Amino acid sequence: MENLTTQVCEACRADAPLLTQEEITRLMPQVQDWKLKTDDNIQKLTRTFLTKNYAQSLALTNAVAALAEEANHHPLIILEYGAVTVEWWSHKIKGLHKNDFIMAAKTSELFV
Amino acid sequence: MENLTTQVCEACRADAPLLTQEEITRLMPQVQDWKLKTDDNIQKLTRTFLTKNYAQSLALTNAVAALAEEANHHPLIILEYGAVTVEWWSHKIKGLHKNDFIMAAKTSELFV
Repeated sequence: MENLTTQVCEACRADAPLLTQEEITRLMPQVQDWKLKTDDNIQKLTRTFLTKNYAQSLALTNAVAALAEEANHHPLIILEYGAVTVEWWSHKIKGLHKNDFIMAAKTSELFV
Repeated sequence: MENLTTQVCEACRADAPLLTQEEITRLMPQVQDWKLKTDDNIQKLTRTFLTKNYAQSLALTNAVAALAEEANHHPLIILEYGAVTVEWWSHKIKGLHKNDFIMAAKTSELFV
């Protein structure tokens, strides 16, 4: 089975196709603990990571941001005392691209 | 008039009183561009700061977090490409304490 964490996030063009629901269903088991959510008809991947305090939340936020800058693909991050929520989707195509699954898998690796 | 930014955020106890609506109305003009919002009956102060890119959003997030750690009072921060949203409230009393206005004023100073 293809391993998402070894794949590279490629530049997403505005005309890149959204993943089909079949493709999403096939990829979901590879990003355990991530959930699908839909905001304003835009599908996103979301996961909340529990932390011990604010400093740990901030450290995880910075690690995710570094990953994002490296890939030039940027998630929404909600930083709280005791939790960090990360949401991945592809702004240009208003939904999920394979890139988002690659980034979600890499985000989970940061937390291990 | 009292200047919020020169005041110190004091430890908030569970039995500290919530600000009255009158007190909130009196303090709001001192935190320009901040808005009141209510989530699950909890009043909060929120402001979205627009940035140029993700790096700038991250820098502001780290600055707000440093301010929070110093005061031992911690906001929710939403980090996005081009925007940072900061929400202040007092978890222990489930609403707004004067501390939140002090921290909101100090947050705005970081952005100037």
